[in-house]
Amino acid sequence: MAPKVVRWGILATGNIAQTFAKDLLVDPATRNVHDIKHTIVSVASASGAARAEQFLKDVEAPQTAKGYGTYEELVNDDEVDIVYVATPHSHHYQNVRLCLESGKPVLCEKAFTVNAMQAKELVQLARVKNLFLMEAMWTRYFPLSIYVRETITSGRLGTVIRVYADNSLNLKPHESFPKESRMVNPNLAGGGLLDMGIYSLTWIFQTLYTTQPSDTRKTPDVQSALRKYEPTGVDETSTILLTFPRDSESGGDMHGISTTSFMVSNDSDGKNTSGPAVRIHGRDGELQVWPPLWRPTRTRLILADGTVEDKTFSIPGPGKGSNW
Amino acid sequence: MAPKVVRWGILATGNIAQTFAKDLLVDPATRNVHDIKHTIVSVASASGAARAEQFLKDVEAPQTAKGYGTYEELVNDDEVDIVYVATPHSHHYQNVRLCLESGKPVLCEKAFTVNAMQAKELVQLARVKNLFLMEAMWTRYFPLSIYVRETITSGRLGTVIRVYADNSLNLKPHESFPKESRMVNPNLAGGGLLDMGIYSLTWIFQTLYTTQPSDTRKTPDVQSALRKYEPTGVDETSTILLTFPRDSESGGDMHGISTTSFMVSNDSDGKNTSGPAVRIHGRDGELQVWPPLWRPTRTRLILADGTVEDKTFSIPGPGKGSNW
Repeated sequence: MAPKVVRWGILATGNIAQTFAKDLLVDPATRNVHDIKHTIVSVASASGAARAEQFLKDVEAPQTAKGYGTYEELVNDDEVDIVYVATPHSHHYQNVRLCLESGKPVLCEKAFTVNAMQAKELVQLARVKNLFLMEAMWTRYFPLSIYVRETITSGRLGTVIRVYADNSLNLKPHESFPKESRMVNPNLAGGGLLDMGIYSLTWIFQTLYTTQPSDTRKTPDVQSALRKYEPTGVDETSTILLTFPRDSESGGDMHGISTTSFMVSNDSDGKNTSGPAVRIHGRDGELQVWPPLWRPTRTRLILADGTVEDKTFSIPGPGKGSNW
Repeated sequence: MAPKVVRWGILATGNIAQTFAKDLLVDPATRNVHDIKHTIVSVASASGAARAEQFLKDVEAPQTAKGYGTYEELVNDDEVDIVYVATPHSHHYQNVRLCLESGKPVLCEKAFTVNAMQAKELVQLARVKNLFLMEAMWTRYFPLSIYVRETITSGRLGTVIRVYADNSLNLKPHESFPKESRMVNPNLAGGGLLDMGIYSLTWIFQTLYTTQPSDTRKTPDVQSALRKYEPTGVDETSTILLTFPRDSESGGDMHGISTTSFMVSNDSDGKNTSGPAVRIHGRDGELQVWPPLWRPTRTRLILADGTVEDKTFSIPGPGKGSNW
């Protein structure tokens, strides 16, 4: 049987859009997937059609793909099966809303929205319209992440009680980011938490929440502290303590510690000398994930019985990993 | 000049009293200290004089040392210069109060008291009586701890922004501790926080508080979560997020993450394979302290410029380290 072909529209043309588009065009057969293929039928840039055309050349899209100067043209293109939204997260709400209202399913870059109310509204709209809507949290789909979740649910670590997850990079913001940069500009919803902290939180949630039986999962209690970046007032270091309720028969409450910083690093010399970025503590041992947290390739399992297992999970080339 | 001789009275005769007394009797010359010596003149056990006499034999105290069957006899012994209080922390308040009211200076085992009000009252009483009063937090006095504090104050790590400290040992409490054990008995102020968590907190305070200029130190904001030990209701896993205020010109707020658990371990295979127990994150790199946190002997410095420095700080023998 011929593979199903999914025809994508790309909304915005920045770095992440380019990386995603290139990964999308890698033949799924390279990762042993044979029932689906992806193609790009159009792209839209708010900076104009010329920018969109250049993007199509840069990512080596099919010659037939169209470049638009407005997002409205993209969402009205009948050839587009699904839209990938790659704008800064400050704009996700309005962009996703536009797609859904035009009847298009959406894969939206993270952070999904800048607050819970926006997320709720979009989810509600997608349900009313019966349209697929998903945050592009690629890390959850890596074979490494699946191995981590399966190791927890298999019981090999014993009852899991605590998880630390840190995604911190000393990005030297005072030198690297002008005040108008999306990283630190409050008008573009800048700050460490929405840009990097979402990975720490994803690791907390996929280990302490997703691994629980779905009928027992409960919303965590949240406590937190934020440090501000003086020049613009956005958050630059965040520390979040999450308590996930669980029945005492199943092991009682679980603690998640999610940390993020622009100012310090969890990989101080850039050689992975500092240690793991995730530590999952169960009663029979520990499972570690090594940095970087957004695209990890290395784990270490250490059990009380003396077992130590190092694993590496390479990303299939060509591609960065969002083609998983 | 002959060394000054300090004549100790030992209040209680449990394991920690025995370890302390043996360390106390190690000649200070073994650690290059020549102006002071320590001796034991008496010991008291609430279980009776015979138990006290046996203790003196076990620790090889001078033949002239006296064994008492009540604490009152000890604190009324004119030969005693200072009392070491080694009872469970549930009893510290009343024992220290007895010593101070009898005019004796006190070194009190940790945890100092079971709540802040008791600590305040004892400090106030010691000030009124003009008597020395100190918690026996030995770890602060190790050369390793001095090195850590000096590395921070020297600026080698850059501005320090975050510290994690974990003292967790899976002590298998369900198998190891009967309900009446001081470790889990609420009537003896059992639980992980007062027994092990004080070390995590000590590492947070000596790195983020003690290293600040004394006129700028500020009380941290505290957020926390506790898991209970079902059989007795004491705390067994605690996670504490401390925010230390600091002027923005000096680097802004600092975050401390203090964790402790009876149920999971930070040294899963008992071979230090799991990684450090303290990570001190500054803008120019990281300083790590390896477990166990109460008596660490190993550090690792990792700087952004590629520097990696491992150090070991051996405990001078004979002795466990409380003779520092």
